[in-house]
Parts: sequence; C-alpha cells; structure tokens
Amino acid sequence: MTLRTPDEYRAGLRDGRRVVYQGERVADVTAHPQLAPAVGHSALGYAIHDSHPDLAVADVGGEPTSAFWVPPRSIDDLRRRGRLIEQVSRLGGGTIVLKEVGSDALFALLRATAGQGRENAEAFAARVAREDLALAVAQTDVKGDRSLGPSAQKDPDLYLRIVDEDADSITVRGAKTHTSFSANADEIVVLPTRAMGRDDRDWAVSFAVPADTPGLTLYVSPFSEGDPNTFEHPLSSRHKLLESLTVFDDVRVPKDRVFLNREPERAGPLALAFVDFHRFTAINYKLPLLDMVVGSAVLMAEANGIAKAGHVRAKLTELITWAETVRSLAELSALRGADDNGVFRPDPLTVNMAKYHFAHGYGAATAHLVDLAGGLLITGPGVGDWDNPEVRSVLEKYYAGAVPGEERLRIANFVSDLTARAYGGYQRVLATHAEGSFEAEKLQILREFDSTRAVAYVRDLAGLG
Amino acid sequence: MTLRTPDEYRAGLRDGRRVVYQGERVADVTAHPQLAPAVGHSALGYAIHDSHPDLAVADVGGEPTSAFWVPPRSIDDLRRRGRLIEQVSRLGGGTIVLKEVGSDALFALLRATAGQGRENAEAFAARVAREDLALAVAQTDVKGDRSLGPSAQKDPDLYLRIVDEDADSITVRGAKTHTSFSANADEIVVLPTRAMGRDDRDWAVSFAVPADTPGLTLYVSPFSEGDPNTFEHPLSSRHKLLESLTVFDDVRVPKDRVFLNREPERAGPLALAFVDFHRFTAINYKLPLLDMVVGSAVLMAEANGIAKAGHVRAKLTELITWAETVRSLAELSALRGADDNGVFRPDPLTVNMAKYHFAHGYGAATAHLVDLAGGLLITGPGVGDWDNPEVRSVLEKYYAGAVPGEERLRIANFVSDLTARAYGGYQRVLATHAEGSFEAEKLQILREFDSTRAVAYVRDLAGLG
Amino acid sequence: MTLRTPDEYRAGLRDGRRVVYQGERVADVTAHPQLAPAVGHSALGYAIHDSHPDLAVADVGGEPTSAFWVPPRSIDDLRRRGRLIEQVSRLGGGTIVLKEVGSDALFALLRATAGQGRENAEAFAARVAREDLALAVAQTDVKGDRSLGPSAQKDPDLYLRIVDEDADSITVRGAKTHTSFSANADEIVVLPTRAMGRDDRDWAVSFAVPADTPGLTLYVSPFSEGDPNTFEHPLSSRHKLLESLTVFDDVRVPKDRVFLNREPERAGPLALAFVDFHRFTAINYKLPLLDMVVGSAVLMAEANGIAKAGHVRAKLTELITWAETVRSLAELSALRGADDNGVFRPDPLTVNMAKYHFAHGYGAATAHLVDLAGGLLITGPGVGDWDNPEVRSVLEKYYAGAVPGEERLRIANFVSDLTARAYGGYQRVLATHAEGSFEAEKLQILREFDSTRAVAYVRDLAGLG
Amino acid sequence: MTLRTPDEYRAGLRDGRRVVYQGERVADVTAHPQLAPAVGHSALGYAIHDSHPDLAVADVGGEPTSAFWVPPRSIDDLRRRGRLIEQVSRLGGGTIVLKEVGSDALFALLRATAGQGRENAEAFAARVAREDLALAVAQTDVKGDRSLGPSAQKDPDLYLRIVDEDADSITVRGAKTHTSFSANADEIVVLPTRAMGRDDRDWAVSFAVPADTPGLTLYVSPFSEGDPNTFEHPLSSRHKLLESLTVFDDVRVPKDRVFLNREPERAGPLALAFVDFHRFTAINYKLPLLDMVVGSAVLMAEANGIAKAGHVRAKLTELITWAETVRSLAELSALRGADDNGVFRPDPLTVNMAKYHFAHGYGAATAHLVDLAGGLLITGPGVGDWDNPEVRSVLEKYYAGAVPGEERLRIANFVSDLTARAYGGYQRVLATHAEGSFEAEKLQILREFDSTRAVAYVRDLAGLG
Repeated sequence: MTLRTPDEYRAGLRDGRRVVYQGERVADVTAHPQLAPAVGHSALGYAIHDSHPDLAVADVGGEPTSAFWVPPRSIDDLRRRGRLIEQVSRLGGGTIVLKEVGSDALFALLRATAGQGRENAEAFAARVAREDLALAVAQTDVKGDRSLGPSAQKDPDLYLRIVDEDADSITVRGAKTHTSFSANADEIVVLPTRAMGRDDRDWAVSFAVPADTPGLTLYVSPFSEGDPNTFEHPLSSRHKLLESLTVFDDVRVPKDRVFLNREPERAGPLALAFVDFHRFTAINYKLPLLDMVVGSAVLMAEANGIAKAGHVRAKLTELITWAETVRSLAELSALRGADDNGVFRPDPLTVNMAKYHFAHGYGAATAHLVDLAGGLLITGPGVGDWDNPEVRSVLEKYYAGAVPGEERLRIANFVSDLTARAYGGYQRVLATHAEGSFEAEKLQILREFDSTRAVAYVRDLAGLG
Repeated sequence: MTLRTPDEYRAGLRDGRRVVYQGERVADVTAHPQLAPAVGHSALGYAIHDSHPDLAVADVGGEPTSAFWVPPRSIDDLRRRGRLIEQVSRLGGGTIVLKEVGSDALFALLRATAGQGRENAEAFAARVAREDLALAVAQTDVKGDRSLGPSAQKDPDLYLRIVDEDADSITVRGAKTHTSFSANADEIVVLPTRAMGRDDRDWAVSFAVPADTPGLTLYVSPFSEGDPNTFEHPLSSRHKLLESLTVFDDVRVPKDRVFLNREPERAGPLALAFVDFHRFTAINYKLPLLDMVVGSAVLMAEANGIAKAGHVRAKLTELITWAETVRSLAELSALRGADDNGVFRPDPLTVNMAKYHFAHGYGAATAHLVDLAGGLLITGPGVGDWDNPEVRSVLEKYYAGAVPGEERLRIANFVSDLTARAYGGYQRVLATHAEGSFEAEKLQILREFDSTRAVAYVRDLAGLG
Repeated sequence: MTLRTPDEYRAGLRDGRRVVYQGERVADVTAHPQLAPAVGHSALGYAIHDSHPDLAVADVGGEPTSAFWVPPRSIDDLRRRGRLIEQVSRLGGGTIVLKEVGSDALFALLRATAGQGRENAEAFAARVAREDLALAVAQTDVKGDRSLGPSAQKDPDLYLRIVDEDADSITVRGAKTHTSFSANADEIVVLPTRAMGRDDRDWAVSFAVPADTPGLTLYVSPFSEGDPNTFEHPLSSRHKLLESLTVFDDVRVPKDRVFLNREPERAGPLALAFVDFHRFTAINYKLPLLDMVVGSAVLMAEANGIAKAGHVRAKLTELITWAETVRSLAELSALRGADDNGVFRPDPLTVNMAKYHFAHGYGAATAHLVDLAGGLLITGPGVGDWDNPEVRSVLEKYYAGAVPGEERLRIANFVSDLTARAYGGYQRVLATHAEGSFEAEKLQILREFDSTRAVAYVRDLAGLG
Repeated sequence: MTLRTPDEYRAGLRDGRRVVYQGERVADVTAHPQLAPAVGHSALGYAIHDSHPDLAVADVGGEPTSAFWVPPRSIDDLRRRGRLIEQVSRLGGGTIVLKEVGSDALFALLRATAGQGRENAEAFAARVAREDLALAVAQTDVKGDRSLGPSAQKDPDLYLRIVDEDADSITVRGAKTHTSFSANADEIVVLPTRAMGRDDRDWAVSFAVPADTPGLTLYVSPFSEGDPNTFEHPLSSRHKLLESLTVFDDVRVPKDRVFLNREPERAGPLALAFVDFHRFTAINYKLPLLDMVVGSAVLMAEANGIAKAGHVRAKLTELITWAETVRSLAELSALRGADDNGVFRPDPLTVNMAKYHFAHGYGAATAHLVDLAGGLLITGPGVGDWDNPEVRSVLEKYYAGAVPGEERLRIANFVSDLTARAYGGYQRVLATHAEGSFEAEKLQILREFDSTRAVAYVRDLAGLG
C-alpha cells in the first residue's frame, strides 16, 4: 500500500491530459495560475495523512492505507468516515476536498455491479487503495432536453453511450457535465446518471479511464476564476474546485475497466447506490460550512453592536437550529447505518432529510447572515486601500464598530466572500444542485419512507380495522 | 411497591376534592359525563402495566414498579423512557396520558433542590413510586401583566406566593393556570414558573399537596366538552385532558411537603430542570400524533384519488420530513443524554430543536392535511344521517372516492376531528404553548448552543488569529 | 321591483323543501334550532337594504332594486360592489352572507351562455332582481375518484348529469357537495364544476330550480352545530352557514330553466366566468375577517402586557402586511377591471393573487394570533362559571392582565372561537378550499400571466435579439 | 432651464474631486477603466431625455426640464414619476440609474425643513433643475457601535457632525458610507440618518457640497470590479454603480448650502421624508429586475425542457405572484398618494408593503431561478472557449437543450450573472439593505398602520362595547 504525499499527488498530474481553459490547452495543471489553487485544495486529501493520521490512515492487513478507501463494515466505521470527511473539509474551508466522491463511487460499484463488472470493480478498488489514486466521478450527462430520455434525444450523444464494442474494449461517445476534480484527478470514474429503460441499453455504461486517455478532453469552467488577494477574498483565494465539461470523443475503454456494459436494469440501482454514499459525504463535508455561517453571524452581530436586538437573536436562533439539525441528522444517519451486501450504508431516509434541511435552509440562512452583516459587504474597501497606510488609517477609524475596524472589515470580507461574491454564488448553486438536486432529495424521501406504521395506526383510530 | 390498576386509580379520585365545572361543584369526577372520559384516558397510564409490561414495569429492588417513576441512570434508560412515553401516548391517540408530567417534576426536584427541600423531594418521590400515585403539575402562574415580574404586579396574588409561615407549615395563596390532570390526580405538585429575583422571595415556592386539600379549588375548563359519538368524533370522543385554573385560597402546606421555601435563586434552575425532562416527554408523546398526521394524509390522498399529483407528492414529502425530523431528534436527544447529579438528562439543545421543529411545522403540516382532505371536512354528514339506513345509502353512493364511501367518510371525519374541530384547535394551541411556548424553545436553543467551535473556526479563516 | 324584508325572506323559505338534518326531515328551516341562526345570518342580505341603502339599493329604471343583482358596467360599479360585499360581510362577522354567490352566478351566466340558454339566463336574472330572490349555487360535484373525469367514473352519477330529455324538460341525476345556503335559498342554480370533453356531453348542464322541486333533497351538514351561549362563542353563536349535500334524484327541469344543455365546450368557460366574480366576492367578504385577525391580535397583545416585546411586534407586522396586502389587491382588482361582453369583470390575475395571499397566509396569521393569545384559548372558563357570581369573582381576580379580567377573557374567547373551535376550523378549511382551492388559484395565476414583456426584456439583455 | 446631454454630464465630472480607488487617486472618473462603466450607466439619466421625452422631459414655465426634478403635485404626477423611474431602470438593466435618489432628497428637503434651511433648500432645488445637475445622497453614517447613538460613540466622528461654525459657514467632520453615485455626481447632498435626541445637536446636520469641495474624499469600493466580456457577464459588464466611503475631513460648508443646522428635532422627520420618496423610487426601479427574474425563469425552464413539470410550474407561479404583487402595490401606492405640504407623497404603508414583499421574497425568488437553471450556472464555459471555433462547436453540440446550445448558454450566463456572481451578490445585498433595510420596512409598516377600524370591530364583536 502507498500513502502518497501532496507532492507525489501533484507529480502524478503532470501527464498528457487534454485540459482546455478559456479556449487554450493547459500544459501543466499544477502550474497554471487558475488551476494550481484547486490542485492545492485537493492536495489536502493527501496532507491529512500527516495532520490527522488517527482519522485518515487505516491499517489494512498491516499496511497503512488512506482511510477513505476502506469500505465501512460497521456503524463505527460510518461514524469515523463521517468525522474524516468533516475534518478534511474543515481544512478545506467547507469545500469538498477530493477523495470523498471517488470512494463513494467505489463503494457503490462494490454494491451494485455484478459478474465481470463486479470483478473489475473489485480489482479497480484494490488498485486505487494500493496506489492511493485521486479519482473524479463523471456522472451527470449533459442531458439535452430533460423531458426526454437518453434514446429519445435528437442527438444520441447527449447521454454518454457505447458506439462500438470489440472483444477487448468498448468505445464511448458523449459528454458529462459538472465533473468535479477531473482536471486534477488520476482517473475518471464514469457512472450512469439515472435509471434506464430497455431502449437505453447503449447508454447503460460505467467504467474508469486515466485522465490522459486519448479522446478525452476536459473543458474546465472559469467560473471560479479567483483573485489571489486574501484581504478581499479570504476564502476563495485559497479554496476552489475545478469543474469540467468532460467530453468523450470515441474513447476506447479496455474491458477490464468496464463495470457496466449495456445493463440498463443496473443503471438506476448503481446511480442510487452512489447517491446513498455521496449524500452522506455531502452532509458531512458541509458541516464546516455550517459552522462558517453560524460563526460569522455571531461575530458580525457582535462587531456591529447588535447582538442583543430581538430580531438578531431570532435570526441567530434560526441559524443555529438549521445548522445543528443538519449536524444531528448527519450523526444519526451513521448511527442508523445498516449492512448491505457487506458494506454498511448510512440510513438513506435520514441522509436525505439532512440534505433536505441543508438545501432548504441555505438560502434563508445566508440571507440572515447578509442581514446581520449590512451593506458593507458590497461597499467595502479593496486590498489596495488596505495596503496604503494613509488610507488604512482612515478605514481603521471609520469602520470601527463594537470591535476595531480591522476586525470588522475582515469579518465582513469573509462574509462577503461567502455570500455576495462568486464563491458565495458557487456555494449557493451547490446547495441546490450538488450531490443530487433538492428535488431529487425530496423524491428520495418519499421513496424511502415506509408509511405502514402510520397508516395502520390511523386506520385503527378511524375505525377502519 | 404497588402497581395500581385502572380501577384502583379511579377509586383514589373519589375524595372530597373541590372541582367546579361550568359553575357547579362536581361530586365525583369519575362519574361526571364530561370528566369521566378524561379519567378513562388517564387510566391508560395504569392499564399499560398489563398491556406493555416490558416497557411499563421496572424491577426496583425486586419490586415491580411503574417504570415512569424510575429516574434514568443511563442512555439506555433514556431511550426506554422515550419508548414508554411514545407507547402510552399511542394508546391515548397522541394525547399525553398522565404519569409523564409527574415524573418529569420528580426528576427535576431531585436535581434542583437542596437541603431540607431535597430530603422532602426524595421522600415524596419514594412515596409516589411506592403507592403508584397520579400527579398533576401546577407550574404556570396566571401572571397578570406579563411585562411585570411577580413582585411588581398590582395584585401580588397573580403569582402563587407564601402569605404565612409557622414552625410546621407555610400558607400559600394564588392561582396556577393550564394545570393538566389536576382534577384526576392524587397529588398536585407545584413548581415555580420562572427565574426570580431578590424581590420575589415569597413567590419562590414549590411543594406538593393532595388534590382534596382544604382551600384548593380546581375550576375545570369546559373547552374540550365532548360529543360521545364516534362517527363524527373518532378521536375526541375517546381522548381528552382536563385543564384547570387551580386556585390556592390560603392553603396550608405542611413543611415536610415543601421543596422550595423562599429560595429565589433556585426558582429558575428548578423551572428549567423540569423543562429539560418535560420537553423530552413532549417530543416523545407527540410521535403518535405525527403518525396520525402523516398516515391520514396518505389515506386521504388515496381516498380522493390524488396520490400521484405533483403537488400532493410534494406535500406528503414535506409532512414526512417534518415528522421524521422530529422523531430523529427525539431519538438523538436520548442518545446524547448525559449524567447530571446522578440522573441522566436528555440533551437540551437536541430536545429543544425537536420541539422547535414540531411547533414550527405543525401549522403547515395540518394545513397540508386540510388541503389534501378537501371541503368535506366541514360539510360532511352527521351520525344521525349515518344511522338512518336510507340516508346512509345515499352517503355511501355519493361519498365514494377511489375507496368506498364509508372509508372516505371515516378518514375525513378523523381528519376533521384532528384539524377542524375543537380537538384540532386544542392540539394546535398545545403545539404552540404546551411544555414551553415556541418562543421559550427558541430562547433555550440560543442559550444551550455553544458557539466556541464555530467562532474559532471563522476567526481563523478570516485571518483574525 | 321588490326589496324584500328579512321577514318576507324568511316566509319564502316555508315551503315543501326536503331538508334532512342528522337523519331527520326538517319541517321548517326558519324554526329549527340549528338552522334558524343560519337563516338569521342570511337575512342580513335583506336587512342591509335598510341599514346601508346607499350601498345596497340601486335605482334600476326608477325602481329600487337590491344592488347585488345589478351587473357592474364600470370600474366604479366594481368598486361599489366590492364595498357592498365587504359591508354585508362586516355585519355578518366576516362570514359570507347570501346574495353574493347568487349574483356571481347570474353574471357568469350572462357572460358565458349562448342561444336559448342565454335567453333563459336573462329571463331568470330579471326575475331574480324583480322578486329579490335568494339563490344558492350548486357547483362542486361529489367527483368520486378525482383522477378520473365525469364519464370515466365507475358510477356515472358522481358528476351531475342529464339522464333523460323530452320536448319540455330535461331530467337530471347526481349530487353536488359543499352547497352553501341551499337549505335557506329560494332557488338552486346549478353550474358545471369544470371543463369537459366530448365524452362528457351529458354532464355539461346548467339550470335553476326552486328549492322545493320534487326529487331534490338537501342533506345539511351538522358540522357547524352551534352553542347559543355568547360568552364562550361570541362569533359562532351568531353567524353560520348551512352546507348541504344536494342530491338530484331524477329531477325534472323545465327547459326554460336550462342554461346549458349538453354543451361541453361551454362548461369550462361558464365555470371560469363564475370563478372570476366569485373570487372577487371572496376577497371582499374576507376583509372583515382580516380585520378580526389583526384587531384581536392587537387587543390580545395589549391584554397580556406583551405589546412591546420584539417578537410580538414582528408578528403584528406580519399580520398587518398580510391583511393589507389582500385588501390592496382586492381594491386594485376592481381598479383594473375591464369590459367583457358588457359586464365589467375584475382583473383575474389581481383577484387570484389576492386570494393566493389570503389563503397562503391564513395559517401563519392565525398561528401568530394563537401565539399572542396564549393557552387560555383552550383552558378558559365556561358560561356556567361566568354566570355563577362566586366563581366570576375568582375569574375576575385571576384572569386580570394588563386589562381587567373580563376584557381579557372576552377577547380570548373571541380568539378561541376564531382559531381553536369548530368555527375556527370552518374558517380554516374555507381559506384553503372555498371559492376555488389554493391549488386552483395558483393554476389560474399561471394561466392569466402574460410573460411577453418579461421574456422579451431578458432576451434582449441576454443578447438573444 | 437646461437639459444636459450625456457628454455634458461627463464633462462636468472632470474637476478636482478627490476619488481614491484601490489606494490610488483617480485622475478622471470618466476615463478610469473600472469607473467609466458606472459613469456610462448613470449617463442613461441624461440619455433618456432623447429616448423617452414624453416621460423624461417636463414643461416648467415653458422651459423643457428634466422630469425628475419636478415635485409631484397630483396622483397622476406620482404615476408618471413611477413610470419614469421604471423606464430609466429598464434601460439600466434593473439597476438604479442616477437622478431618482437626488430628487427624492430634494422633495424631502422641501417638505421637512423650515426657516432659512427651507429657503436654502428651495434655492438649491431650483438650481439643480435649472442646471440639470447630478446629485448623490450621503445619508448613512458609518455608525460605529450600533447599540449606541451619535453622541454616545467612543469616537464622536462616527456620525457626521458639526465641529465648528462661524458667521458664513459650518465645518463638518465624519464619514458617510454606502454613498451611491458620489464619485460621478456633481453635488453631494448630506441628510441625517436617523432621529436624534437633545444630546445629538451637533450631529443634526444637512447640506449640499460640490463633489470637489476641499476636505472631501471619496473612497470608492472595488466590489463591483467588472469584467468587460459580455459573454460571461451580460449584465455586470454594462451596468454598475459606484459606492463610496465619503469622508468629510473638516469640510467647510457655506451657510447658504446648509439645510439643517443643529436642529435635532427635525432630523428624524427629514430622514423619514426622504425615505417616503426613496422607497417609492426603490419599488419602481426594481420592476425591471422583477421582469428579469421572471423572464429568465420562463426561458430557462423552456431551454431545459422542464416547463411542464409540476414543481417547475409551482415555482413559476410563486415567481409571478411575487413579482406582480410588488408591481401591484407599487402602482397602488401612487394611486393612494396624498398631498403633504404641496408635494404629493405616495402612500407610505403601501410603499413599505411593496418593499417588504420585494425584500422578503427576493431570496426565495432567486433560489427558484437557480433551481430551474441548474448547475450550469457555475460550471459553464468562458469567453475564451466561446471565441475558439473548435471549442465553440463542442459547446454548441453538448449544451443544446430544448433550444440550441448558444441560446441555453446565453440565458444561463444571464442567470449566472444575476444570481451567482458578484453582480448577483450585489443585488442580493441591495434587496436586504438598500433604501432602508428589511427591518426598517417592517418597523415602518407597524408605525403607519392605523388599527382603529380593526380594533373597534373586534371590540364590538367580542361584546366589549
């Protein structure tokens, strides 16, 4: 087994991968000014071996192994995994780091594939653990007209599909969107995005390929284009992901890397098996973000001298209730975990409720934060002002609140980054759409709920026997 | 130790207690047509010894004892207590039964009194367990002008107070309101309603007296005046509480029954110690009510043939999330319990969040239920119609939905009782005001939350060291 | 023309109508203890001729005519109609009185029928005005399984339908539900409940018949069964409607009373034409109810001494905003009225938004009211207590707040009637389901909104030409 | 009278004003790359003379005058002013343009000053109209610890104050924050920010000074630092404001420019008189923004092929109701206008309710928009991608939805700019804090509401005479 270092991880990214950024080919993702910070953020998934070995390093057959890659076999394993995900996210400023999503995919593959696909999945999972690889997961297809299924689209490539097959390989064409980490991962794991019907056989495909596979191009979004100054951008200058449009232009995949090959009946279960773990990941990696919202609200209220006002206390109470409800349900989802084919999965109803509360409350929570912070979020000074001693003295004088001016400005800038700038927008869109949309969580809650007890009780009370 | 039977419990209520109902003295509460159903409901707290001995009967020193009276000494004890409270409430149609509140008061007295008061509390608790008594708890004072404290009211009697004291007794005057069970309890336990200051010494009092103590009058509210027909009133015909204005007209209390005697600094802690347990009781006894709302929503949607409509599914999802969030937090509040002076108390933050979600969501949940059920809730037929065979055949024909007419009508009547009649109003007011108002829960969440972790994290990220 | 008096109206109800209440035939609706109060409430529609002649009496060709029956021909007419509806509802404690719904139906018939049906409608409308009749409108069919249309139901009678026709008459069978006023109206106007397709010809029917027509039976719901004591029930003891299941057991209708005879393409437009006016009625007759909620919240807060608390002020602000938004939109819907075939109709988008706000906010508004009022709503004394001088003195002492005990109790009883008793439940269900359900309003808003301006503006800004 | 052209307006800004941006003195605001777009946006207030003369040009004594400067003397004037504000904002992409705020201040000065101050205000207003000047309004003080009033702050300069006075002038020191337009206005009008007490005499000051007055420095916030590419930033590349920290370092103000000189009793009324007009401005200039939200939601739903899904229709309905409620109340606030010392003011209760609905619903509305749009908001391609033909063909293929890829991308970029980037954050913070915070609107609603009618009605119904 290997425990790679951040530098070893970085070295692995320097290959022939085809990454395009603002229309230009990127020679080295670890050196590109807009991509390097994301590589650094992801490298926390390796740095944590040293900083938190108790959580991040497992003993597998006497070999130290990254704990992310070890499938949970008990409720205690689920709890530890929850804590590990929270901790690495805490290092990453509340933004998902790297290995969570890949291991969610591996656990799903171990649970929901069969036959040769299952054997391939096991071999792949073993190699990932052995080599401590970085995985990206490409699940969401571009989808075209969402009122139509894969085979009904005008352009059949709008869902990734098998266009050819021979004895040793399949060839795939199409594009996945919103692929996090692809530009800074070693391997891209492809999962189906939804349940499929009989007509969708060619689209029922899952596999893994190295990031530098011929025919694969990663169009990285410049949305999170950052500014390196930490005065105005204390969060976004340090923490970011890369998201790509991941285009497979007749990519040949060796069969020993294929996990699902034209098995439409397994597509939905595999997609859901991933979701079970991935939403558990989501609710745990969001916990530091919850702390950021609550903590900055407390600090902002104090800085402005309004902490005792009735409406401020009411807003703080709502924030706390929201954050701690998500935290509580995240904890309980592990405690309610159960064995499923040898892998423990967190309780889906509880996981989805945690995610529901997070997503449902995120808008109101950040609105409260904006309310407590004030207009300074969008009218404050810049780093050039702060670095000019003459201007700084003016700012220190006039931005003093119930705390010194610098403290008030730095908290306001933190809140501005978190709620009013592109980083805030990124988090806001994630809250609604990442790891399953809010609508998807609602659907899943309805599916997972067993109404037997409630219905029987009412029938009895209503005299219906 | 004694495990009393329902009949023994009833027999104990036939004493000289002074109960007034609609301006008239009640001779025997077990025989009065409006009071007897409440006695029957409360008797479930004794019937459960037989129906669910595993939950309801504890072994204390080899003696079978009502499990309600045994203070929790572990997390497992808390969980069992939660299940016991849920079960007896399930027998009681989602309405609190009897012994919960009394034991909440006993545990609070054991935790928050001192000296002679503590000794008296211990002796009293031992006797209650030994004799399996029924306790009511009189906590909420009438309060007068709520912007003023006890000693500042125009009429000093608007909070219960000590008006005299001699070597053997104190004499108290005043009135408690919203006293549940008082007319059908053996003993009335009096607790202070709030924190008190130095000027409030005379009002800082706690004690227990038998229900037939001279000077004590129980003015029972006729709000829940019921109709015994189970067709129109499937719930309220069977389940009800008695609430009283509980007037102490210079009642003499022997000192060995006094738990707090002019100790204003202990008033607040005692009030809160009660609340800790009482809200745990609340969130557990509400669980069957949650099932009633969810179960009847499912049945009503099916009966009307609308279960597949998008807005119906959205409403069911909200109902489920609401109900199961409360259930989850109730469960977790026990799992997070901790030792406090030898008694395990459920985690207050989690308890108050559970209560918050219950209260906050109750209105919307029942509104959804009303929405799914339709106008039939208020335009349906009466028991006289149903009992007339000719009319019944018309009703069966025309009230058929996706299920037979009788089924649809019975579910609609159940929902009508639960949401649109006085029983529904009773539950609605309880949701906001019982076991601490919604505002009180919010206050308590803010108090119980420790912001250290969140604030330190934000300070670090914001560059404030 | 006639302006009937309340007594003349009452006299007209003493005929052979077949009214069934709790399984028994009612001999005289004006004399039945549970029905007479509803007759008295409806009689306000006649008493207003004397109390408010400026609003309630119109001059039609030199003849004084009940203003309800005069179709609006201008924006000013719409505004006056709004004020008239508000005023008669004010007399009726915020509950709809009588003539509004009938005139809504007449205006709809004048707009949406054609040919012989139109002629019959005009003749009928003229007679109603001339004789100042009381009309009930039977629109909502019992509907059976709501996922199926009229012709697809297992029992074809679950929507009212034509079962026979000859030269002079049609014969109809089926049942309408939620029919307000039927037992105390002179005539029953039948309207279709929804749009219909080709297969639904037999169900596309509209007509009017006298309440005592053979084959017609009115099964009156006992839901609002009242208690005449005004201490506990200040509202419901005085104001109520009768709602019936209205069964047509092969009722023969002369053809000159038929407005729609197997014209499915006109069923939807006629139903909507009624709704246009009927929701305008709704938002105007609700205005006194809004005042009741806001006014009692103000009084309750003052009585309890909490009017200055931050959360109380926040709740009052929400209540005011809710009530005054509905009032504003109601006013504006008349100001935005437009000519439609000679009759002015209020602006449908504005009307439906007013109704939306009313329905959407009703639950939260009454929840705030309950919150401000306190537990006294369900634990207060009864009329028997109040009438016993000895008990009354206790109540006066102990229910004193920041106002005398009597005042606090009477306001609390008012709020209890309005929110926690069956009257409150009745209002709550009305808020969601009457005059079109909340879901129906939402549908109508989406239909009535013209997105042209907004879409063109965005296309332009987004560079889409 | 003068009607200045955009170029004349620009020329007027080239003076000795002291503007600091990112720590550096700006030589010419019309030439600075980050400031020039804001100047261009503001110039729309002059361009509208030509593009919409019917709305924007008034005849005053035979002289064409910018209609902004003409005080409303009738309800029709208020309606026209509303339409003018909406139109100029429509040109400005839903962002306030320039003259609204200045004229709001002038009308307030005309209503709420007295004596010499009033005379100075009249003379100033006449000159502004005559010379068609651009005004900024500096109202919000930096405020320090908000729990303390002006005279109680540790540093007395935290509210702007008079530090010296002689026969001809006063000298002021302090800073105003969130001052929109200051860097590109001709004159800065200073208004008090709140009601003041006796101890606050020195802080009760109002005046106007040219932007290049000695001692005045404008520290412009770089928050809205823009990117000129219109592909990624269709809105923010064109429309922006400048906001400054406006520091008065012992600025000498001639007395004929002083409107309030140590008159604390007039400070509150003047602040509110401004707010009356300024919130009317707000609700009218937001109308195009409402269209942007609704229109882009419709387009996004169509582009994604989800327009018929139940949850999508529900969200569109909420958006429409929100937008059209604000529009309705804005219209009605003018229709309910009334004379107040010769100037018509819009109805404050209605204005504040419109603002309340806007602010209250803004978060949910944009959350719905984000929900409908999807993750593409934050993972989409950049302008460099789009401008590369090879990449563009990939984007066109894979971002096709129910509409061509370009259309979907352009709408998504519009929504991204509006909701997920700094421009969206700017709008979000404005929604809560600009033109009076949401809390301020709530306070004002409570103050403006007259509860007499509602309270009297309830007292009557409750039997309280």
